[in-house]
Amino acid sequence: MKEDKKKKCTVRFEPSGLKTEVPRGTVLLEAAHKAGIYLSSICGGDGYCGKCKVIIDEGQFQSRPTTLLTPDEIRENVVLACQTRILSDITVTVPKSHTLQTSQILMDTDARRFSELAGEVREGVFEFDPLVQKLCVEMSPPTVQDHTADHERLYVAIRRQVDAPIMQTGFRILQNLSKILIKADYKVAATIGRRGGTTEVIEVEQGGRCNTNFAVAVDLGTTTVVAHLIDLTNAATIDTEATYNSQINFGEDYIRRIIYAEENDAFDEMQNRLVNDVNNLIMTLAARQKVDLQDITAVICAGNTAMVHFLLNLDPTRIRKEPYIASVGFVPPIRAAEAGIQINKRGLLYCLPSVAAYVGSDIVAGVLTTRIYTKKGISLFVDIGTNGEVALGNRDWLVCASSSAGPAFEGSGVRNGMRAGAGAVEKLTILEDGSVEFSTIGAAHPVGICGSGLLDTLAELFVNGIIDRTGRFKTNGHKRLTEGDEGLQFQLVPADNDHHEIVITQADINNLMRSKAGVFAAIRVLMESTQTRPEDLDAVYLAGGFGNFLNVRQAVTVGMLPDVPPEKIQFVGNTSIAGAKTVLLSRKALKAAEKIAKNMTYFDLMSHPGYMDEFIRAGFLPHTDLLLFPSVRDIKCKV
Amino acid sequence: MKEDKKKKCTVRFEPSGLKTEVPRGTVLLEAAHKAGIYLSSICGGDGYCGKCKVIIDEGQFQSRPTTLLTPDEIRENVVLACQTRILSDITVTVPKSHTLQTSQILMDTDARRFSELAGEVREGVFEFDPLVQKLCVEMSPPTVQDHTADHERLYVAIRRQVDAPIMQTGFRILQNLSKILIKADYKVAATIGRRGGTTEVIEVEQGGRCNTNFAVAVDLGTTTVVAHLIDLTNAATIDTEATYNSQINFGEDYIRRIIYAEENDAFDEMQNRLVNDVNNLIMTLAARQKVDLQDITAVICAGNTAMVHFLLNLDPTRIRKEPYIASVGFVPPIRAAEAGIQINKRGLLYCLPSVAAYVGSDIVAGVLTTRIYTKKGISLFVDIGTNGEVALGNRDWLVCASSSAGPAFEGSGVRNGMRAGAGAVEKLTILEDGSVEFSTIGAAHPVGICGSGLLDTLAELFVNGIIDRTGRFKTNGHKRLTEGDEGLQFQLVPADNDHHEIVITQADINNLMRSKAGVFAAIRVLMESTQTRPEDLDAVYLAGGFGNFLNVRQAVTVGMLPDVPPEKIQFVGNTSIAGAKTVLLSRKALKAAEKIAKNMTYFDLMSHPGYMDEFIRAGFLPHTDLLLFPSVRDIKCKV
Repeated sequence: MKEDKKKKCTVRFEPSGLKTEVPRGTVLLEAAHKAGIYLSSICGGDGYCGKCKVIIDEGQFQSRPTTLLTPDEIRENVVLACQTRILSDITVTVPKSHTLQTSQILMDTDARRFSELAGEVREGVFEFDPLVQKLCVEMSPPTVQDHTADHERLYVAIRRQVDAPIMQTGFRILQNLSKILIKADYKVAATIGRRGGTTEVIEVEQGGRCNTNFAVAVDLGTTTVVAHLIDLTNAATIDTEATYNSQINFGEDYIRRIIYAEENDAFDEMQNRLVNDVNNLIMTLAARQKVDLQDITAVICAGNTAMVHFLLNLDPTRIRKEPYIASVGFVPPIRAAEAGIQINKRGLLYCLPSVAAYVGSDIVAGVLTTRIYTKKGISLFVDIGTNGEVALGNRDWLVCASSSAGPAFEGSGVRNGMRAGAGAVEKLTILEDGSVEFSTIGAAHPVGICGSGLLDTLAELFVNGIIDRTGRFKTNGHKRLTEGDEGLQFQLVPADNDHHEIVITQADINNLMRSKAGVFAAIRVLMESTQTRPEDLDAVYLAGGFGNFLNVRQAVTVGMLPDVPPEKIQFVGNTSIAGAKTVLLSRKALKAAEKIAKNMTYFDLMSHPGYMDEFIRAGFLPHTDLLLFPSVRDIKCKV
Repeated sequence: MKEDKKKKCTVRFEPSGLKTEVPRGTVLLEAAHKAGIYLSSICGGDGYCGKCKVIIDEGQFQSRPTTLLTPDEIRENVVLACQTRILSDITVTVPKSHTLQTSQILMDTDARRFSELAGEVREGVFEFDPLVQKLCVEMSPPTVQDHTADHERLYVAIRRQVDAPIMQTGFRILQNLSKILIKADYKVAATIGRRGGTTEVIEVEQGGRCNTNFAVAVDLGTTTVVAHLIDLTNAATIDTEATYNSQINFGEDYIRRIIYAEENDAFDEMQNRLVNDVNNLIMTLAARQKVDLQDITAVICAGNTAMVHFLLNLDPTRIRKEPYIASVGFVPPIRAAEAGIQINKRGLLYCLPSVAAYVGSDIVAGVLTTRIYTKKGISLFVDIGTNGEVALGNRDWLVCASSSAGPAFEGSGVRNGMRAGAGAVEKLTILEDGSVEFSTIGAAHPVGICGSGLLDTLAELFVNGIIDRTGRFKTNGHKRLTEGDEGLQFQLVPADNDHHEIVITQADINNLMRSKAGVFAAIRVLMESTQTRPEDLDAVYLAGGFGNFLNVRQAVTVGMLPDVPPEKIQFVGNTSIAGAKTVLLSRKALKAAEKIAKNMTYFDLMSHPGYMDEFIRAGFLPHTDLLLFPSVRDIKCKV
C-alpha cells in the first residue's frame, strides 16, 4: 500500500474539464478542491450530510458504505466525494447544482440597490475622513534658523492638514525619510493610517501621487467572500468581485470548521485558504482596474466572529465551547502583510468590531448601515445566513442574539436548495389551478431553489392549503404531491430530458420551519425582554443572501418576521460590506461601530430560559399564537 | 600582486598577545581592529592626526612617507598603523597610552557620586512610573453572562492598574493570548510599554514572573559607551559596564565618522559597530548578574545626535552640512530588535529627544538631571566632550549652543593626552620651587594626562608665570622648559628606564586654549543674548569625562567658566546616563525631557555674528577682558 500510495492518479472533473494529479488513495473531495472545484459539504467531510454527491464516469475507486445514497444512485456510480478514495486515473461528473458558481453571488447589485445606505458617507451623514489617507504635504526646507529635524517637520506639516495628536512612524520609513524629503524638495505624498488613537505615517513618497490611493472592503462570509475596490480619494466604489470561501470543504458552517481545524491542527490551513481567497479577489480587482497593488493601502473586513478569527489565525476554539467567547472582539488594525494579505507592504488591515462569539462584525455593520442606533423609533434588524442574527433597538438601547437557524435559507439541507446563482428559482407562486409560476436568476433553466424561492415556496404551500399549520403535507390529493424516497414531496418543476425535477420534500419543509422558527424565537426573546410590541416597531430590516426579488410579505406569512405592515419591512441585501465601506471612509463611522459593538447587549439564547418555548411556539405557520399574526389570520387561505 | 593578496599573514599585537589573520596588503589599523584592539585615530585613517603610532617588532611592511614621525621614531620602526600595509607575518607593539582601556571609564563612580541627582525618582521628584512595566494581572474567567473577549478582558484588567487610555497589542501576542490566559487561569504577568501616547502590551506570560523585569540605560558617547543595568521593579541600578565606541577607527569625532561613512558607504558598518558595543555591554551585565536577556524589556539611550543616528542607521549626513539638521530629533520608541539590539525580542528601545544637530539628547539629559529647567534662578550647564555644549536658563527659558571645542580635554590632540584611565595624571600642582606634584588614576605609574590633569596643567603653568596670558611659554628659563621637536615644551614627569617622559608642548597648550576659548565664547554668546551677568548665575554645572578629582576652581582660572564663587560650581560627571535612567523610570521625566528639548532655543554659533569675536577675546588667560574675571585678576600670580 505504501508503494501504491506513491502512484499518481489524474483526476478529471466534468463538465468543467478541470484536472489535477493526486497520490493514489486520495479522498475525492480533496482532489476536487485541489482542482479548484468547490463542492458543497455541510458536514466537513464526515460523510453524513450527503451534499458532495458526484458521479464516477470512469476509473477505479473505493467508497465507504453509506445510507445517504439510494439504490438507483449507487447503480449510476453516484458517490459521496468525501467517502471515496481514488485508486486509478479517474473521470468524475459534478452535478451542476452541487458546484458553487462565483459569477452570481450577490454583490454589486446589492451595493447599487442599497446605495442610499452605502452612500451615506458621500451624503454627509458621516464626514468623509477615511481611515487611510494620502496627503500632499509641502514643507519649507530647513534653514540654519529653522532647523527642525525632518521627522518633526513632517509631523508639523501633516498636523496642519489633519487632526493627529499622537503620531507614529515605522522605523524603515524613518531611515529613508531625509533622503526622500531632499530628493522631493520637501514636497511629498504622505500616506497616513489611523490605528486606534494613533496616526501612523505608513509611507512617504516623492512627487505627485497624492491622488492615487485605494482600499478594498471585504465581507468575510462563511460561504462567500465579497470584495469592493474603493477609490479613497473620492469614496467611489470602482469595482466588485466575489468568490466562494474555500474553507467550505471543511464544513459549511463555521462550527464544523472549528472542529475540523482542532481535530486536524489545521488552523494555518484555514487561514491560508481564507487569505488566499481575499488575495485572489484583490488581485482580480487590481488587475481589472489596472491598479498597482502598492497603491492599495488598506483592507477592511466585516464578517462573523469565527471568520475574522480564521483570517487572522486568532484562536477560535472557544467560540464553540462554553462560555462561548471570542479571543478578540475589537481587533486592532494590523499590517495587512502580517496576515499574509498582499497590498502595499505597509498597508493596514482593519476588522470591524464584533459584539460576541455569535454576533460578529457583520451584524455591527448591519446596525450601522441601517442606522437603527440613531433613530428614536425602534427598529428590528434580521440577517439570515447560516445562523440568523437579530438586533433590536433604537438610539437609546440595542440588544442582539443569534439563533441556530441552520443554513436552510442558504439552500443547504434542502434537497434542491441552492444559493442565489444562475438557474435558481428566486420567485414562485402556486396558482389556483395548482400549477406553479416561477422565475429564475439569469432567466436560466431552473436547477434549484434559492432563499427567496424557498420562502415563497413555504408561504405558497401554506396559503394554498397544501401543508397544514405544522408544515405537514395534507393528504388531500393535490395533483403535484407525489410519494418520493423520503415520503411525500411537492413537485415545483417537472423533469425534462436534460434536467431533473425540482421538488420540495417534507424534510426540506421541516428544515425551513426550524430555520424560521429559530429566527422568530430569537426576535420574540429580544422583543419580550425589552417589552417591545410589534406595533412599537418603526422598521424591520431583512439582510442576507436571498435572491434579489425577495417578497418581504412572505417572511411575515410564514411567521419569520413579526406582523408589521409590509411598508415597514425593507430587504437591505449585504449590509456587512456596506457597513465595512462606511467605516473605511469615515473615522466617525468607525467610532459609531465601536459604540454599537460595545453597547449592544448580547442575549445568549442557549442559556435563555424562554427561548426553547418560543422556538416550539414558532414551529407553526405562522405561529401557535395567531393573535401575533393578525394579518396572516385574515388571509383567505385554505388552511 | 593579485596572487600575493590571497596570501594570509598572521599579525600579533604586543603586549596583549592578541592575534589575527589578514590578507597580505591589509592596512595595519584594520588588522588591529579585527584583532579587537582599538587604536586612537582622530582622522579616521587619513594619516594626518598621527595618533595611531605602533612599533613593528618583526616582519615585512610598507609605509607611506609621513612628516608625523621623527627620524628617531622611523629608526625605531615606529609607523602610523593607518598608513602601513602588512606584507608578511608580523609582530607589532602597541604603546600603552595609545590603546583604549575599558576598565577605567567613568561610570559607576559618577553614578554613586551624583546619586542625589540620579536618585531623584526614588526621592519622589518624579513619580515612579517606568516606561516599561510588568504587571500582575488577574482577571475573572469569562462566563456565559460575562462573555467579554479575552483581548478586551485583558485591557480592562490592565486599565484597572495603570492609566492607559490608548492600548495596542502586537499581532503575535494576540494570536497566543487565549491559550496563555486559559493555561494561566487568567492570572498573568503582562509587560506594558509606553510608546508616545499609546500603551503597548509587549508580552503576556503565564504565572508569577511579575517581579522580574530589567532595563538597560546607555550613554552613547563618541568615545565611550556606558551601560547601567536597572531593576525596573524597584528602580535600583544593579551593575554598570563600559566599553570604547568601536567606531573610533573611523575617526575620533563624529563629523569625521560621518564623512568616512559617506565616502565608503559604511553606514551599516557604523551601526553594526555601535550596536555590537551596546549588545556586548548588555550581555556582559546580564551574564554577570545572571539576568535572562528575555527579562530585559527596555533599553534607553542618550547621546549626541550623530551617535543616535548611527545607532538607528538614520541618515546623519546633514548633521555636518548646512543647514545642519537632524533626520529625527524626537526618535519614537521602536522595537529594540529592529535596531539589532538583543534583549527581549519584543522589548523597546527608547532614545531621549535632542534639541538640534549639535545639541543632542545627552544635553537634554543633563538639563533634566541638574533640574535647571525647574529653578527660579539662572543656571549654566557645560558638558565638555569632543564638543563643548552649553545650556543656560531657568524654569522660564532655556538656551543652548555647541562650540567646536575640539577633543583636547579628552586627551586628543595633546602629545601625552589620554582619557581618564589607569595611569592618567588627573591632579597636578607646580610648586614654588618649580617641581611638579601629581596623582594618577589608580595610583599607577603616570603614562599620560587626562582632562582634569590638563586643566590643572594649563592653570598651573599660568599662575606660576610659565606661560603668558596668550598661552606662550615665556623664555625666562624655567628649569623644566626644554627645546623639543616642536619647540619649547614643559616636562611634567621625567622619563625613567621603563617610561617615556610626560611633557606639555606649545602645540598642546594652543589646543587646550582653543578648547577653553570655544567653550567660554559659547557661554558668552548665550549670556549676552539673554542679558545674563555672571552675578545672575545661581549655579554652574560642569559635566564630562574629566578625571574624578576635577578642581572646578581651575576652570575659572583658565577662563573656561565664568567667574562665579567656587561654591556655585559643581562637577556633575556623566549626566547623560543619569538623565536616561530618570526618564526610564518615570513617564513624567520623559514628558519633562520632551518639554526641555522642544522649548530650548538653539543658537547656531557658526552663523552667529558675535561668536568669532568672543572666541578671539577668550583666547587669553583668563580672557582679554580681565574685568570678566575679577577673582583671577586678584590671584597673586607671576604673570
